[in-house]
Amino acid sequence: MIRVAVDAMGGDYAPGEIVKGAVQAAEQRKDIQIVLIGQEEVVREELKKYSFQEGQITVQNATEVIATEEPPVNAIRKKKDSSLVVGMNMVKRGEADAIVSAGSSGAILVGGQVIVGRIKGVERPPLAPLIPTEKGVSLLIDCGANVDARPSHLVQFARMGSIYMEHVVGIKNPRVAIVNIGAEEEKGNALVKETFPLLKECPGINFIGSIEAREIPHGGADVVVCEAFVGNVILKLYEGVGATLISKVKEGMLSSLRSKIGALLVKPALKETLKSFDASKYGGAPLLGLNGLVVKTHGNSKATEVRNSIIQCVTFKEQGINEKIRESLGTEKTE
Amino acid sequence: MIRVAVDAMGGDYAPGEIVKGAVQAAEQRKDIQIVLIGQEEVVREELKKYSFQEGQITVQNATEVIATEEPPVNAIRKKKDSSLVVGMNMVKRGEADAIVSAGSSGAILVGGQVIVGRIKGVERPPLAPLIPTEKGVSLLIDCGANVDARPSHLVQFARMGSIYMEHVVGIKNPRVAIVNIGAEEEKGNALVKETFPLLKECPGINFIGSIEAREIPHGGADVVVCEAFVGNVILKLYEGVGATLISKVKEGMLSSLRSKIGALLVKPALKETLKSFDASKYGGAPLLGLNGLVVKTHGNSKATEVRNSIIQCVTFKEQGINEKIRESLGTEKTE
Repeated sequence: MIRVAVDAMGGDYAPGEIVKGAVQAAEQRKDIQIVLIGQEEVVREELKKYSFQEGQITVQNATEVIATEEPPVNAIRKKKDSSLVVGMNMVKRGEADAIVSAGSSGAILVGGQVIVGRIKGVERPPLAPLIPTEKGVSLLIDCGANVDARPSHLVQFARMGSIYMEHVVGIKNPRVAIVNIGAEEEKGNALVKETFPLLKECPGINFIGSIEAREIPHGGADVVVCEAFVGNVILKLYEGVGATLISKVKEGMLSSLRSKIGALLVKPALKETLKSFDASKYGGAPLLGLNGLVVKTHGNSKATEVRNSIIQCVTFKEQGINEKIRESLGTEKTE
Repeated sequence: MIRVAVDAMGGDYAPGEIVKGAVQAAEQRKDIQIVLIGQEEVVREELKKYSFQEGQITVQNATEVIATEEPPVNAIRKKKDSSLVVGMNMVKRGEADAIVSAGSSGAILVGGQVIVGRIKGVERPPLAPLIPTEKGVSLLIDCGANVDARPSHLVQFARMGSIYMEHVVGIKNPRVAIVNIGAEEEKGNALVKETFPLLKECPGINFIGSIEAREIPHGGADVVVCEAFVGNVILKLYEGVGATLISKVKEGMLSSLRSKIGALLVKPALKETLKSFDASKYGGAPLLGLNGLVVKTHGNSKATEVRNSIIQCVTFKEQGINEKIRESLGTEKTE
């Protein structure tokens, strides 16, 4: 039976929305187990609001909470009884297959590496959020905390990202591209120039070459490979430009009586379309290459995203993603 | 008298819109001279459509044209009689104060460095486009072709960018920030960590620290300093996310009869607001730190943007930007 640990204390809407999302996931999949980790009384109080299958959701007490602003390394080292550290230790000991947290990104990244630990052969575990595109979603890998990557890291990101997109998201033979400042092979910085030929020769991935940032929102590749600094810029700019443009559109619509009436008529259809430009239905961002799975959901996640993230963990386990990653990296070595 | 050379053959709408823009600029500023460079007969044929002050617009023959797809270094070296090379040589010899081109970005960047040449002390000439924000515009510096910059380059970008924003765009004491993956000083990749303290100590600029990509569209800084690879990603993703969202909004508006009626009512106001989210009224992107000025306008520039770019060159010269850059870099050395 698949067992998912959930950090009930992390995120802007913890524990309320986290617990609610866990109950929804348990309803959707009667064959899984969920462990809510956090201050027991508080979590049990929330759980009382719902009815669920006896024994499907359990509570694991953890007295401490890691705040968003705490220095990650310190927090992981010192708060041994925090919901995040307790949950990650469960994954490490095999008592849970995965952990979902909406808490501090830094602490999740550090804890994933330090506590859960990497799959043998994985040089760096990349954080790989899905981003919305015109055609659906693309995997942006890496957006983690480990900047200044080497070419061999990027090749592993491409492999792991391909496996994830094919078997968790369901894109057959996903197109892999490397973020670059031009489409030609001779373009790029030192890292990209060195990585490009390695990706070209890498077996088992469908490498289509460079992708310019302009083409990312158009869905120009399914797996968008980049170094973490660049990935972070892409992810955050996506949010920033999106938020600014939507607010400009709203401002325009409310600028005259005529446009206000129009806005009322347009609103439902517009809401529906913009909802399609949202990747949260796929869950959170997986930290790949670990002995288990760590999923980081948005800090402002509500129940639905928490539910989706739990289901994502289930699919990950059912599809044997880590076994596929081990196999893929094993292949690499014998070639 | 200020003299601006204009590459009449570069860009998607050359020579028609380029010539038209030049005529508009001449109308706006009767005290400047414009030299249109290109195949003389073709350019004169276009000019015939307009009336303008005798002698204010002249034509300089150049028989060759550099295509967008040509390898830049080769194009600059071999096409000695191309409109771009002829124009840049005019700037070099002081026969023109500046050149505006909507042609090949690569050729413009290479030509600027190789033909026009750098101001003494400038290590790298950055390409610095203005990008629209909620509050107006910000200068994104560098988006050029020289990736893998060193910390000292970024410090010069900050100085030159400040001068440009203050004296050409008119932002008093512009806020300078470095693109980073977190707000804290200890965050960043090797380049940013090394550059940060240098910017903190740099005299004559208003350094406010790190800026996360999310804050760029909100107008979190006036001068956004970054290495060219990152700058290129920011610039192109801005365009990509913008285009995708606008097309999603349109799609939503046309999805039902109700929303179509609403769209008709909303359209004029929306158009007006979105027009404010556009930096082209400020002209093109200057390549800073050269002995003269090279301005790259969008490949799809129409007359208005060409006119604005010419006026931008005039302001640049009138404000003595290059003298201020020389002074600022001179100061640096004696401190």
